[in-house]
Amino acid sequence: MENCIFCQIAQHQLPAKIAYEDDQVIAFHDIHPAAPIHLLVIPKKHITTLNDLEEEDAALVGRLQITAAKLAKELGFADAGYRVVMNCNQDGGQTVWHIHMHVLAGRGLSWPPG
Amino acid sequence: MENCIFCQIAQHQLPAKIAYEDDQVIAFHDIHPAAPIHLLVIPKKHITTLNDLEEEDAALVGRLQITAAKLAKELGFADAGYRVVMNCNQDGGQTVWHIHMHVLAGRGLSWPPG
Repeated sequence: MENCIFCQIAQHQLPAKIAYEDDQVIAFHDIHPAAPIHLLVIPKKHITTLNDLEEEDAALVGRLQITAAKLAKELGFADAGYRVVMNCNQDGGQTVWHIHMHVLAGRGLSWPPG
Repeated sequence: MENCIFCQIAQHQLPAKIAYEDDQVIAFHDIHPAAPIHLLVIPKKHITTLNDLEEEDAALVGRLQITAAKLAKELGFADAGYRVVMNCNQDGGQTVWHIHMHVLAGRGLSWPPG
């Protein structure tokens, strides 16, 4: 999608501190971190919101979660723990219109989650 | 798993206000809601933490997300928006040792998410 900054990151047209990449998924560090470690894991396919997911996207969206867990182990915060968050539309606080999984770690995350 | 309360809910051995169920997934209302709408979506398969996910679980964990989006539409909060959260281990604030997706809606969720 033109003008989608996450599509542009996925296509290496915008810079990002990339933590992981394969043919379907890319992960990079959030430029406005809300925790000592704050990664974003996104599908390379443009999906605007969680409401736009189709049944056929189940494995792809699951790969975001698998990637988050893989990065947690690689970067050494799996045992201490982490929180993953996805926001949909205004009440969820979504600000970029390409689905993305926040992975927050490096401090104790409080409850409620916002 | 014996003594796992979410396995017991999945097997209808413990009561819950169930919002959705199929052969792989069950969703029910959190008994300690952190928002006007607070659902938990879990796999029936026992998986202790996000760190225990295997590659083969991608489609299953993706179905949690698809189910959350489906419930958002059915229960009428898809357009207003929602936040989905999964916690892993102590820093994430995990308190039940069977993976579960929190779905929070009905109010504006703030940032950071805990």
